[in-house]
Amino acid sequence: MRAYDQLRPYMEKAMAIKTALTLFEWDNETLAPDEAGELTASVIGVLSGEYLEAAAGKDVERLLAQCEEEDREDGSLAETERAVIREMREELQRVRDIPKEEYQEFARLTARSAAVWVKARREHDFGAFAPVLESIIRYQKRFAGYRAKEGEALYDVMLEDYEKGFTMENLDQFFGIIKAELVPFLRKIREEGRRIDDSFLAGDYPNDRQEKLARFLAEYVGFDFKRGVLAVSAHPFTTNLHNKDVRITTHYSRRVDSSLFSVIHEAGHGIYEMGIRNDLTLTPVGQGASMGMHESQSRFFENIIGRSRYFWIPIYEKLRGLFPDELGEIPLETFVDAVNKVQPGLIRTEADELTYSLHVLIRYEIEKLLIEEDMDVREIPRVWADKYEEYLGVRPEHSGEGELQDIHWSQGSFGYFPSYALGSAFGAQIYYHMREIMDFDGLLARGEVGAIREYLRENIHQYGRLKTSRQILRDMTGEDFDPAYYIRYLKEKYGKIYRVKN
Amino acid sequence: MRAYDQLRPYMEKAMAIKTALTLFEWDNETLAPDEAGELTASVIGVLSGEYLEAAAGKDVERLLAQCEEEDREDGSLAETERAVIREMREELQRVRDIPKEEYQEFARLTARSAAVWVKARREHDFGAFAPVLESIIRYQKRFAGYRAKEGEALYDVMLEDYEKGFTMENLDQFFGIIKAELVPFLRKIREEGRRIDDSFLAGDYPNDRQEKLARFLAEYVGFDFKRGVLAVSAHPFTTNLHNKDVRITTHYSRRVDSSLFSVIHEAGHGIYEMGIRNDLTLTPVGQGASMGMHESQSRFFENIIGRSRYFWIPIYEKLRGLFPDELGEIPLETFVDAVNKVQPGLIRTEADELTYSLHVLIRYEIEKLLIEEDMDVREIPRVWADKYEEYLGVRPEHSGEGELQDIHWSQGSFGYFPSYALGSAFGAQIYYHMREIMDFDGLLARGEVGAIREYLRENIHQYGRLKTSRQILRDMTGEDFDPAYYIRYLKEKYGKIYRVKN
Repeated sequence: MRAYDQLRPYMEKAMAIKTALTLFEWDNETLAPDEAGELTASVIGVLSGEYLEAAAGKDVERLLAQCEEEDREDGSLAETERAVIREMREELQRVRDIPKEEYQEFARLTARSAAVWVKARREHDFGAFAPVLESIIRYQKRFAGYRAKEGEALYDVMLEDYEKGFTMENLDQFFGIIKAELVPFLRKIREEGRRIDDSFLAGDYPNDRQEKLARFLAEYVGFDFKRGVLAVSAHPFTTNLHNKDVRITTHYSRRVDSSLFSVIHEAGHGIYEMGIRNDLTLTPVGQGASMGMHESQSRFFENIIGRSRYFWIPIYEKLRGLFPDELGEIPLETFVDAVNKVQPGLIRTEADELTYSLHVLIRYEIEKLLIEEDMDVREIPRVWADKYEEYLGVRPEHSGEGELQDIHWSQGSFGYFPSYALGSAFGAQIYYHMREIMDFDGLLARGEVGAIREYLRENIHQYGRLKTSRQILRDMTGEDFDPAYYIRYLKEKYGKIYRVKN
Repeated sequence: MRAYDQLRPYMEKAMAIKTALTLFEWDNETLAPDEAGELTASVIGVLSGEYLEAAAGKDVERLLAQCEEEDREDGSLAETERAVIREMREELQRVRDIPKEEYQEFARLTARSAAVWVKARREHDFGAFAPVLESIIRYQKRFAGYRAKEGEALYDVMLEDYEKGFTMENLDQFFGIIKAELVPFLRKIREEGRRIDDSFLAGDYPNDRQEKLARFLAEYVGFDFKRGVLAVSAHPFTTNLHNKDVRITTHYSRRVDSSLFSVIHEAGHGIYEMGIRNDLTLTPVGQGASMGMHESQSRFFENIIGRSRYFWIPIYEKLRGLFPDELGEIPLETFVDAVNKVQPGLIRTEADELTYSLHVLIRYEIEKLLIEEDMDVREIPRVWADKYEEYLGVRPEHSGEGELQDIHWSQGSFGYFPSYALGSAFGAQIYYHMREIMDFDGLLARGEVGAIREYLRENIHQYGRLKTSRQILRDMTGEDFDPAYYIRYLKEKYGKIYRVKN
């Protein structure tokens, strides 16, 4: 038997356990009863240990080496098999040197930490979350240390998990451009731009109608409910068991645009997962190319498609029909202006496109401080508030609207945030490319989102992790990643909306 | 290290995988998208193989033998440890001789079969389900054959899984009494009893109010929503991950009593699981003593408590307040008579208490034919209809209201049905015992369901599988199982309601 065929049962076991763990996470966020946490965490701890065994046991290590050798000798692996081996090798390096007990302890910790975070956020009590966060960071640093190459910075190790080929050096440069270009541009808009009224977006929008709208929009952009579900959770997210079971959540509030664009955003993530090829799903290659590429798609759907005037032309009447009291008198142009209003605020997920990357910049800088400068977690609230004041001119009054707003750190995700900004930049580059080869605005105006989605599926989604994000960009647009498109996109779009020259 | 401590990680792994499989089942029934089935089934197949490994691998077999020997030598095991060993030994015998591949194939088959059954039931098409059912029966017989003792009947092997200590010989006797006593009594009620009007139970009962009622009633009888959830599924059921995560479902229709009593029923199952001791949950001892004892509790809550006049005294106004149009003019006595109306029908889960065990009898007789007489599955529709005509005087017009109504066979559960009737009989015996030591009706009338529930928890629930159902009955009531109480209960209750002498 080929080494690859001997390896396959280990891969299947690892993927099956990972899928089960995904289901537990989903269930925790959407349904599980309050007091279930402790015992369910013990189950998750055991399963995580089994995952570790299946993904990084001695047999796997031996078989992987054998596969690699056979392939070097006769190039006998198929393309997808080679990619599976590469991903398994990377996962092995990631976890091999973590002692099983430490890995399980960490899994139990993060299974409980979400609840601690939720409570702390609700009560605006960073102090209650700080000790948990401190131990999460300690684990993350230790885990990164186990696999860091000689002289490699720990934060670079973490970044690698989310975006291959982007280090602090690249990101410092990327965020440098953002800071240099967007902070002054934002000031100009605030000083010279016209005023936009968005007050009508808040009001008595009944939840059941918002849900109807959510389902309609998700389906309209291409989320297939035969292969997906929509549920409610505190913090909207997307997850999937495989390409035929993709799950998105939303959250209804008095701001109709909040759930509306969040649903299009999550549907974008979901469409990516649904578009992955059947031969890749349930293998380590069967997920998005990178976090950045994933965000590029969700933000493409949310912003470039969803906040476009053309997108609303065929469906604005539908929206008005659902909320005649609130939107009956509001013309399309007014609505589109309102959902594009620039308003430096405190909450990342509610940020407009222009200020969005500044929220990410702040998190990037704080993560570097925590990981590379060993900043005390107790410093976070002050540093957070100072940076918001400096870049955005606003200052949180409590932790709930400050450093406790995002779930990521409670899950142990450090190095994840930069991909939000990178993804937005990937999206802009993809957008200018697509405008050259198709009548982008015309398609939207005629309700033909499908043509755009299909192009994305063909050039991005289907490949899963067969290509890196940079490779995808190169193959699709003919160019390497270039952040200039992102700056251009924001300046053109908001210059026009606010009637300022850039 | 003691053999028991070496065994513990295997036990924990088996329980963790079992818990994951439970979550997948729950998710399949309540939420998963239509097209997810095939791929999720492959994941379930892999996890089932892992379960088999953890529950019946060579190491487990060796360690179990060692534990048993150490205990024989010095009686060193604690009571719960001894029970864990006993349960693990039984599980080992159950699955040890099943080849891993066969076990996985069967898990994949039953992960898909529910969907086939749902579709066949909807379309009244037994032929579409027959081939799947045929292979399920083939697997079940083969699996029973692997562990049958010399000369032991296959159906007895299956019965043992659901109710230890009850064989075909016991059940033939039990159902013999039921047939001899209840068929003539039912005829008498139909011929001599007064007429009861229950037409007002069907109507325009809005689902959202039914849901409010469902939550109220579940909580009122003692289902703790901090440790449990209520969801909607086609076929109501209860499941649990552990004693702090217990899940019940219901289904709303035009008959308000249908969801109402189904919720009390499932809450009864749920209360059992919530009452199991903390040191037993997430071990093989941490579940109900038997299927019959489980049903005894759900049916005790549903019928003996829930359909009692006294139960409704403190809460009938609440119910009327929810449905003023439908129940505003209906006095308490009329409502209680209606929910106890005897009406031979086609659907087991909608049957009144008196005809209920005849539905079970029919299934018992057909299962014996399928397993012991090798009856062709294609015969089921005819045999089913003939027996309904003979015992209940009604004949199904299609499979949906006939042999496709229950989910059990699609899940491979043969030998399960008899426990429904046994459970009802256990409940009656427990009821007469409790009446002797407490003011049962008075407690209900004063809204003190908690006192009754606590007594059940104390004497039944907390033990999990530390005792068998017969032991529980003996320790609690001072007598062995005696079906005479069941006959007495039904004759007293319905004699009074229908004003006939028995």
